[in-house]
Amino acid sequence: MTDRTLMESEAREAPLVVAKLATEGRETLASVGERLRSLNPGLVLAAGRGSSDAAALLAKYILEIRLGVPTVSVAPSVQSIYGARLRLANALVLAISQSGRSPDLVEFCLAATGQNVLRIGLVNDISSPLTSAVDVTLPLMAGPENSVAATKSCVAAMTLVLGLIGYWREDAGMVSAFERAPGILSGALQADWTRATAFLDGDGPVYVVGRGPGLAIAAEAALKLKETCGLHAETVSAAEIRHGPFALAGPQLRAIIFAQRDAAFPGLKALAHDLEKLGASILLISAEETLPGVHVPADEEPVLELIAMLLRFYLFANETALRRGRSPDRPPMLSKITETR
Amino acid sequence: MTDRTLMESEAREAPLVVAKLATEGRETLASVGERLRSLNPGLVLAAGRGSSDAAALLAKYILEIRLGVPTVSVAPSVQSIYGARLRLANALVLAISQSGRSPDLVEFCLAATGQNVLRIGLVNDISSPLTSAVDVTLPLMAGPENSVAATKSCVAAMTLVLGLIGYWREDAGMVSAFERAPGILSGALQADWTRATAFLDGDGPVYVVGRGPGLAIAAEAALKLKETCGLHAETVSAAEIRHGPFALAGPQLRAIIFAQRDAAFPGLKALAHDLEKLGASILLISAEETLPGVHVPADEEPVLELIAMLLRFYLFANETALRRGRSPDRPPMLSKITETR
Repeated sequence: MTDRTLMESEAREAPLVVAKLATEGRETLASVGERLRSLNPGLVLAAGRGSSDAAALLAKYILEIRLGVPTVSVAPSVQSIYGARLRLANALVLAISQSGRSPDLVEFCLAATGQNVLRIGLVNDISSPLTSAVDVTLPLMAGPENSVAATKSCVAAMTLVLGLIGYWREDAGMVSAFERAPGILSGALQADWTRATAFLDGDGPVYVVGRGPGLAIAAEAALKLKETCGLHAETVSAAEIRHGPFALAGPQLRAIIFAQRDAAFPGLKALAHDLEKLGASILLISAEETLPGVHVPADEEPVLELIAMLLRFYLFANETALRRGRSPDRPPMLSKITETR
Repeated sequence: MTDRTLMESEAREAPLVVAKLATEGRETLASVGERLRSLNPGLVLAAGRGSSDAAALLAKYILEIRLGVPTVSVAPSVQSIYGARLRLANALVLAISQSGRSPDLVEFCLAATGQNVLRIGLVNDISSPLTSAVDVTLPLMAGPENSVAATKSCVAAMTLVLGLIGYWREDAGMVSAFERAPGILSGALQADWTRATAFLDGDGPVYVVGRGPGLAIAAEAALKLKETCGLHAETVSAAEIRHGPFALAGPQLRAIIFAQRDAAFPGLKALAHDLEKLGASILLISAEETLPGVHVPADEEPVLELIAMLLRFYLFANETALRRGRSPDRPPMLSKITETR
């Protein structure tokens, strides 16, 4: 019927998954949101590995920017390797995992207890050990994911983070964006990125740049380029880039910039311009049609724009992998469940 | 008199700087430690940019592992770009900066107020704006630093972090390590790393790997290789490496592994072995003389071993830059004070 890779087929399912989250998940989210308002945590701990770590980083930015709650990116090794137990009180633990089987994440959640500590798991495989290590499970509803490169489950986790925080804040704009997500994501899958086709031909350093919530999207995109294309793509914060990474700016550098239209937008555009002046090749991803680059559907919620960029990027990573003669479904040396201890 | 680069001369001053910290800083540290025990913060926010961000990450690992206090790596953009104000109470803010002039860091500290919030600045230039944005300044005592690549100030910040937490915990072992630091660091400068000389000849991807507190050291080392050598060196967590970055493991990959002798040690050795089997070139940095690789003086405090590794690494980065025909003191496109907003 089709010679689509698993990665492409699964990425294309994302709008349906997200539609399911918005309809079937709504009631649960509303009640968890209420519970969070009453708990009013002074601290969030966000944890994940690989792609789920990118979703956890996205949660950190949204929580800090929209709710002002300080958010710790959890390093599970603190518990699993060093046996330390964090002193927690009045805290929310947000654990994100597709498989729900990362032993260190499960261990971390089991140990993350304290007065008024609520542990929420965003998990795709709800029969996994992670669900019994948390107080509340929010299913990612992505269905079986067979490509080693996670796509729909990561988009689901990120969209669910947006929805969860929207319901927590009772933020009509965020909740409505959560409900609009299926349409915006479908539109993104159809966006024409042919001008990017050859951007990653050849080898050499690749920077994947973002700022604020866009840094989380950049982290996931860089991971995908490593995994599926064997490219040395590194996540670089648009803030940190002038503290060292700029030394590589020159004709050999390719930079992919995720430019959501929020307060970081002018700085991201200026950075693209500066890097280009130094000879680097730039792929600017944005919803702004007047900019050179590739586009996704515009939305007033910058986080939704970013998730749309990421979903379209998955197709691009898939095509790039194939152009480079690699199977994005079977990257060398990697397996679907990674048992970090 | 000498054709040493500024970078090398300044790195070689580190033991003296650290000796000064241990003697002149002792009383202040003891009293700040007492104050911290009485405050008993439930949360730490650690902030820095560039090399100081690596020192902040080191603080996060030590605080979580030794004190169990959840520690947020601050993304200053949350405040400076997005105008968000974190809700803080009973928290310690740890701001680290050589110049004390990063506007976003200063802004973040000015806004980081709340009930029982103590802001401590680890600052080299104590005439800088950062000192008036914090409640307590701990001078890095590194003297003028003129090389764009920070060396002695970063070693000073990391050693001071070790001392501060040692005094806070009233941990005789950590305090004694803080006092031993000058000797251990002097020994590190004399360590023979000639077998590493040619390790970074040529181009291609470089991973700089660490785990736990070693990840912070790896982050600073990777930054230095970008800055001074123009190499695409990326920090990779030994935990995350199997979630994607492993796809690059093969003959084209060079990996530098910082292997402190703590609970992460066996895993780091196993990783070195696995990467080597896949054809990657490995430079293992350790205090264990029986391992192939390069060595630093052994110490019972793994954090001190790591700082010693970093200091010796600075000389290696300097030599590598010169071998590559670059001036480590004047990296392209970078300036000493970076005004991120």
